Amino acid sequence: MLITELAETTGTPSATIKYYVREGLLPAGERLNGNRTEYGDAHIHRLRLIRSMLEVGHLSVSSVAQVLAALDDPDAPIAHTFDVAQQALSRAAVPDVSEPTSASIARIDALIGRAGWTGCEDNVGTEIAARVLDAFVHAGYPLPDSYLDAYASAARLAADADLAAVAALPDPSRMAELMVIGTVLGDSLALGLRRIAQAAATSERRLS
Amino acid sequence: MLITELAETTGTPSATIKYYVREGLLPAGERLNGNRTEYGDAHIHRLRLIRSMLEVGHLSVSSVAQVLAALDDPDAPIAHTFDVAQQALSRAAVPDVSEPTSASIARIDALIGRAGWTGCEDNVGTEIAARVLDAFVHAGYPLPDSYLDAYASAARLAADADLAAVAALPDPSRMAELMVIGTVLGDSLALGLRRIAQAAATSERRLS
Repeated sequence: MLITELAETTGTPSATIKYYVREGLLPAGERLNGNRTEYGDAHIHRLRLIRSMLEVGHLSVSSVAQVLAALDDPDAPIAHTFDVAQQALSRAAVPDVSEPTSASIARIDALIGRAGWTGCEDNVGTEIAARVLDAFVHAGYPLPDSYLDAYASAARLAADADLAAVAALPDPSRMAELMVIGTVLGDSLALGLRRIAQAAATSERRLS
Repeated sequence: MLITELAETTGTPSATIKYYVREGLLPAGERLNGNRTEYGDAHIHRLRLIRSMLEVGHLSVSSVAQVLAALDDPDAPIAHTFDVAQQALSRAAVPDVSEPTSASIARIDALIGRAGWTGCEDNVGTEIAARVLDAFVHAGYPLPDSYLDAYASAARLAADADLAAVAALPDPSRMAELMVIGTVLGDSLALGLRRIAQAAATSERRLS
């Protein structure tokens, strides 16, 4: 298809498509005679992936480029692709406050120990969670371990669902892509459902 | 204390403190002789709350003003305060895409039915979650019900922990405040722990 059709199909202006090609997010189309360039289904698919990272994940264009480079590297193991995506997708989410205290880092490490999780050392999530603990203390509401353990159980339920969905896919490139998409979109899904569940729990406890 | 001490204690520049007072986020201090104004512990507490909403929740100043007005209304039931906070705290999180499809709204309603949740009609979370479902379809990865149900169970675990923490507090004004703080900070805590749990689940499934 020509760029006008690609633009119409994906709801992305032609100028934006050309910008993504220049920035290396999208492969160039096949040059036909004269000024005409042919695009295929792979371009539609890639454009939708780019837009979900930008619009739902609120990633920068340079972060999207990093994630796509990891997805396109045929030698990268899935865990590496996932790690790059996690880092890129978390930068926007890191609370804009000072470094986490070592006491809060130690509490998250202890939480990981109680949960029996392994292979997650130096994960970007530890810094995020530790900063949140500090912010709760700062606000005058230090969190008990029971609260952290409930949130850890919730996180594990979601992560197991993510991994089950990924494992059900037939080929590694789609698995890596779903890990990336699932990380972007899953944060928003978890947030939306948490709002609904809070309203239900509030209503049941008759706090209204 | 004088404004210089309030600034030092809370790490907030004096000019910013004055700006919050002008915008109605922070009550004015008590005017002493001449140009000196006295601030108290309530100012420290309120400043920390404002900064966690701005820096961790990434709320706009006008959204913070709305939440604080709801917190300060002595006649507002806790559920109302919570509702205002949920709306304000969710606006930044809503995926920047088109309106959700009615099919996805219906799927979230069906999910709520399967979970047996009540009192959560018209919650802002339904629109957020429905948009996410659409985005997954758009990206070529429609979600099965089993995935949604796992995320709903996770959301409920977190919400029950939130409500237990709130119910343990002695007075209604602190309860409402923790609901607000917990909604802001809890999103980031859930996100951080989800990253760690995904890494652990990936490692255990030997996808690395």
